[in-house]
Amino acid sequence: MSATAERQRFARIALSFVAEPGDLVLGVLLRCCEPAEIMAALSSGDDPGAVLPAAGREVPGLSQAFRRWRARLDQVPLPARLSAWEGIGLRQVCPGEPEWPARLDDLGEARPVVLWLRGNADLRHACLRSVSMVGSRASTAYGNHVCAEIAAALAERAWAVISGGAFGIDAAAHRGALGAEGITIAVLAGGLSYAYPRGHHELFAAIAAQGVVVSEWPPDRAPTRPGFLVRNRVIAALSCGTVVVEAALRSGALSTARHARDLCRPLMAVPGPVTSETSAGCHEIIREWGAVCVTGAQDVIEHVSPVGEGLGARRRGRAHPRDHLDPLSAAVLEAVPARTGGGPAVIAVAAGVDLDTAIGCLGALAAAGFVERCARGWRIRKMP
Amino acid sequence: MSATAERQRFARIALSFVAEPGDLVLGVLLRCCEPAEIMAALSSGDDPGAVLPAAGREVPGLSQAFRRWRARLDQVPLPARLSAWEGIGLRQVCPGEPEWPARLDDLGEARPVVLWLRGNADLRHACLRSVSMVGSRASTAYGNHVCAEIAAALAERAWAVISGGAFGIDAAAHRGALGAEGITIAVLAGGLSYAYPRGHHELFAAIAAQGVVVSEWPPDRAPTRPGFLVRNRVIAALSCGTVVVEAALRSGALSTARHARDLCRPLMAVPGPVTSETSAGCHEIIREWGAVCVTGAQDVIEHVSPVGEGLGARRRGRAHPRDHLDPLSAAVLEAVPARTGGGPAVIAVAAGVDLDTAIGCLGALAAAGFVERCARGWRIRKMP
Repeated sequence: MSATAERQRFARIALSFVAEPGDLVLGVLLRCCEPAEIMAALSSGDDPGAVLPAAGREVPGLSQAFRRWRARLDQVPLPARLSAWEGIGLRQVCPGEPEWPARLDDLGEARPVVLWLRGNADLRHACLRSVSMVGSRASTAYGNHVCAEIAAALAERAWAVISGGAFGIDAAAHRGALGAEGITIAVLAGGLSYAYPRGHHELFAAIAAQGVVVSEWPPDRAPTRPGFLVRNRVIAALSCGTVVVEAALRSGALSTARHARDLCRPLMAVPGPVTSETSAGCHEIIREWGAVCVTGAQDVIEHVSPVGEGLGARRRGRAHPRDHLDPLSAAVLEAVPARTGGGPAVIAVAAGVDLDTAIGCLGALAAAGFVERCARGWRIRKMP
Repeated sequence: MSATAERQRFARIALSFVAEPGDLVLGVLLRCCEPAEIMAALSSGDDPGAVLPAAGREVPGLSQAFRRWRARLDQVPLPARLSAWEGIGLRQVCPGEPEWPARLDDLGEARPVVLWLRGNADLRHACLRSVSMVGSRASTAYGNHVCAEIAAALAERAWAVISGGAFGIDAAAHRGALGAEGITIAVLAGGLSYAYPRGHHELFAAIAAQGVVVSEWPPDRAPTRPGFLVRNRVIAALSCGTVVVEAALRSGALSTARHARDLCRPLMAVPGPVTSETSAGCHEIIREWGAVCVTGAQDVIEHVSPVGEGLGARRRGRAHPRDHLDPLSAAVLEAVPARTGGGPAVIAVAAGVDLDTAIGCLGALAAAGFVERCARGWRIRKMP
């Protein structure tokens, strides 16, 4: 890396210490100014409009943002501190770098300034085939079970599972993927040294060993409540699609779902008993937002895969209402030429029944929706 | 009724004894010939093409149908037999008569020739506000519970509940409506004197007392397996919409669902645990056929009601992700002018915070999807 690039990179990391993740003023500003230029302007103490003519009046809220950021300039770490973090296994990845997931750029001005990572997986590569699985912290045994099953099945088919590292559904998703020796990614709402919730210390270590733990926040920042909502856009943006496993109507998981929808990423939900409040959010987004109702990993893969992929194994158990037919009707139905159609006499011969029986069966089959009239007589009606 | 009308009516009823329900040849034939004309042709023993010139070559399969029907002419009851059935509380309703549900005419040539009824409710009136609830005979306690709850709630709001009188979900639907003193309609796949299944003898009596039991078959016909599929089109056609409560992938309930969809009637399904095979059919039609995911009677009513009706009580429990906001962000969000939008200074004053705090909160609120930039500053982003 050239000295200039190195300087810009350090400035960008420094900015992530003075501005909160999701600060749109910084997002807009970074469209017209280099990080080092912004850091220099911040350090100068001058009016931002004067020192950053490129931004000028174009960036609303710039003066206030500068006041806010300047109050935090003392939090920018010395290079030695950064090295110390790297020494304990943390790394940063900035936009455009090899490990940066290009999909995050869809967030536009809300794109993270930098990501902090800990773990052995390559983030960009892992995200190429990945699904976010999110849901309630107060999940049920049903939700945990189904979530872990789907996550394990996704992992077995080499799909990475992304979640938020929280108790409940998030933990079930990570653990399901880990159990199947798959890659899983935890996107936290606080610094990586902080590792909230504390009870997941060992889970995060396991994720780092097999996948990667991610945060937009500097390593020593404690999570704040709004931070969780801000973080959710990253979970949605990193993956090919988002699955809500269990979510009450009042649920942070629905904020992730909304981001997925707004990013035009596939949005899915796992149904559950209508008597369970923790499934009410899932049913709501299926009904009201058009989230796809998924019942297993195969459904999920079909829905996040490019057209044509992911199909095949499916529909083994596909039902045919014709299984309910009496033997005669079934024989007649079997004898109807599918596309070209045919007359009753031809069908009767093929079915091995007399003409009268064939006609009778065709009438009943038509009433039941199996066959329809056509120019040549009768043909199979297309099933849904 | 004039003597001519009386004669046509008797001929129509007679035809229902010689042709099976759903016999499309008869359906087509009745478009161009009067019932009495067809009965006379049948009795004459002549070639149908000769005695029914209006039908002629236009009706495919007519000769074979005549052979089939003629073999059953001895089953046409004498008027005295019809009177006897009327004496035990059965009545017939023919197309165009006051109690005929006009909605059945959407079935076209598959429209029933006649319906046999037993019960105190007026069929046409009851169907005007009605929902079909169908599902598995091998239902679970969950399915029965949810079905009865929804049926009772529909009945309480003066919606009639239509089902097939079978064990499992059908029985739960009828019983739920009866328990709420509502009207319920059982559409059977065999004659009303037969009353299959036998175990539902008392249930059918209760339905007749409070609603109506319906069949296309002559009173003494035993149900046949194909008859159930043929019957399903009537369940779908009678109601404003169909709800599938529990259905396996291999399930007759899905044939009713397909008829509802083909008739362009609202099709709904109640989700359940993805671990339950009896909910797999529901999830499939939600995902693949676009059936609406409903979790209660209110959802159903909204979906079957003309636009604008049925709304109102809903959304009491509607969640706002803003419930998760910290107090400062919540105050700032509250202060953002919803449609017109406003600058940060205005918002800061309204929220009772300083400008810096307002800007910071607005940035986080924007990242979380609550607000967005507009010409005048910031405005509320429309929630889904």
